[in-house]
Amino acid sequence: MAESGLNMSRRIRRTPYTDSAEAHGVRGFSVVNHMLLPKAYAPSVEEDYWHLRTHVQIWDVAVQRQVQITGPDAARLVQLMTPRDLRRARVGQCLYVPLIDEHAGMLNDPVLLKLADDKFWLSIADSDILLWAKGLAVGMGLDVAITEPDVSPLAIQGPKAEALMTDLFGSAIAALGHFEYGIFDVLGTSQVIARSGYSKQGGYEIYLEGGHLGADLWDVIWQAGQGYEITPGCPNLIERIEGGLMSYGNEFTRANNPLECGFAPLCHLGNEVEYIGRTALQNIAANGPVQMLRGIKFGGGRTPPCGKPFPVTARDGRPLGQITSGIFSPRLDCNVGMSMIAAGHWDIGTELLVHTPDGIARDGVIAALPF
Amino acid sequence: MAESGLNMSRRIRRTPYTDSAEAHGVRGFSVVNHMLLPKAYAPSVEEDYWHLRTHVQIWDVAVQRQVQITGPDAARLVQLMTPRDLRRARVGQCLYVPLIDEHAGMLNDPVLLKLADDKFWLSIADSDILLWAKGLAVGMGLDVAITEPDVSPLAIQGPKAEALMTDLFGSAIAALGHFEYGIFDVLGTSQVIARSGYSKQGGYEIYLEGGHLGADLWDVIWQAGQGYEITPGCPNLIERIEGGLMSYGNEFTRANNPLECGFAPLCHLGNEVEYIGRTALQNIAANGPVQMLRGIKFGGGRTPPCGKPFPVTARDGRPLGQITSGIFSPRLDCNVGMSMIAAGHWDIGTELLVHTPDGIARDGVIAALPF
Repeated sequence: MAESGLNMSRRIRRTPYTDSAEAHGVRGFSVVNHMLLPKAYAPSVEEDYWHLRTHVQIWDVAVQRQVQITGPDAARLVQLMTPRDLRRARVGQCLYVPLIDEHAGMLNDPVLLKLADDKFWLSIADSDILLWAKGLAVGMGLDVAITEPDVSPLAIQGPKAEALMTDLFGSAIAALGHFEYGIFDVLGTSQVIARSGYSKQGGYEIYLEGGHLGADLWDVIWQAGQGYEITPGCPNLIERIEGGLMSYGNEFTRANNPLECGFAPLCHLGNEVEYIGRTALQNIAANGPVQMLRGIKFGGGRTPPCGKPFPVTARDGRPLGQITSGIFSPRLDCNVGMSMIAAGHWDIGTELLVHTPDGIARDGVIAALPF
Repeated sequence: MAESGLNMSRRIRRTPYTDSAEAHGVRGFSVVNHMLLPKAYAPSVEEDYWHLRTHVQIWDVAVQRQVQITGPDAARLVQLMTPRDLRRARVGQCLYVPLIDEHAGMLNDPVLLKLADDKFWLSIADSDILLWAKGLAVGMGLDVAITEPDVSPLAIQGPKAEALMTDLFGSAIAALGHFEYGIFDVLGTSQVIARSGYSKQGGYEIYLEGGHLGADLWDVIWQAGQGYEITPGCPNLIERIEGGLMSYGNEFTRANNPLECGFAPLCHLGNEVEYIGRTALQNIAANGPVQMLRGIKFGGGRTPPCGKPFPVTARDGRPLGQITSGIFSPRLDCNVGMSMIAAGHWDIGTELLVHTPDGIARDGVIAALPF
């Protein structure tokens, strides 16, 4: 893997699908949760974008590690970690949950799977939430077990995903609602499959338990996908930004609170639900957030890659924010990006300037998310 | 940075020295603590190895992030996190400290700097120890502040480091003992400089506080190094293995306890010192560790890269361990590696087999660390 540019070592873990990804010509990796995330296969991100919107793709998203919390105090600990009201959470449901610290700073934005009243998975973005959960549990003396099980999500994404998955797993898979999961027979084992994924094109995530089954599962999906023009893929930057799908570490960090991330509908601000950071979050809500995540459309020709954030200013030069993910959208025929925007400037339609590293000040406008 | 193979984005953070590293021709990066670590500059790891042993190098090791713990309960929290007895730790000292969880599993192996009785830095390897420390503090209601300050270590390594640093900072820098630090004037600011580093060739680490000074500091070192044949560098795999310097995530993980890592001299097993995981560690000590980290010399010609661990067996095929870091040493004229080795087989001189992915079963022998 010399072309990946990474020092391949045990520290940056391979996934149960890495061999398959390599066999299918993966062109380099990123690193999430100390694990390899395929970065690209197709000749260009734009070809990959059109394919994802038209057909179906198989994605190695095993980097979405599960933090498993079980035991008598599991439900209490999970609720302590998020401002989302989990009192009516039910088995079979996936819940997108902001995780915050005592200052209401964002620590992660996982999908929560309630597997039983005393068993939960947090399917995490890029931070060691297992250490946060363990620290809280040890510090509070909670009766829980916190582990990283041998579970490696494989995503099937795109408009043909439902047909492909129905071929393999029957009509029950088509009956799953968005962000619902069921238990299905996969290679003779019982596995969690959810209607979810890191795209807006529809699809599923198979939470494969048992890494030794990875190559076989990939092959089964691949064979079934031949009639649907399946390709190997990975989260697509154009599609992700157009869909308003944020990325922890990019659009928001521990320096951001969930309200400015747009997670207000997921935050219970009353005193009935006890969670860490509640007082801090209530204070932020009372004063009103000082910035808010927004979409930005901007011109000036194709933007260079957004390896470093692009400063965003008012037309008079006043700093308003920074674009943390940005790229050219061939469908919208303009550049699209996401940025926290200072209060007073975040209304849809507000005009501003985006400063790219090629020295161009580009005309931009606040847009709704998703684009 | 197309050649790096990484999706450059805000999530994988640049350091205050990344621009300088790129200007000096860095050939790709690894990722540690969500941040870029230069991977190679020189034409080969062997040329780099000989240079490091002969001259002096400048390394961007800003990935060694500091977890800063301050406040009335800071000393208590730091002691709770490590089995090392810190009762006699003093300001001015650097201490290598295993961090363990409630099961005595390794969480990290940072260098601890005691900056004051109520102020500590943990200079960490690749895991989010800030979240562990915060979880404990919130869970226990400790009166501490836990932050990641704007501190980015720059390492000056190699036998000529002392002369170079004396030119810049005076004879006080030569008077520093191993794993001692002092406060020095750097670019008109007061900065921590320690005699330490991730090599066995001698040298210093400048804990630069203030990322805006990064490029200037690099330039000052670079200019002063011209008379010492300075080159840009990074931790060298040959030198690291020969020196027995372990890497968290490679040689050991949360599945390992500090005794089998060889950290027994750093573990206080009595009841006078209170720390998390003490009971678990006492039990392991009472029963004796079931494996122990060892060096292995092995032949069969130059080993392929150790991207996946190499199984290690007895001559009769019984599994004994796995080499987690391994490479050819041009100085020792054989391959060298590190592996946990099962009890009964870890004596120096024990013969065994190393199975590399090219299908060769190579003759090996247990060796002392460092080689």
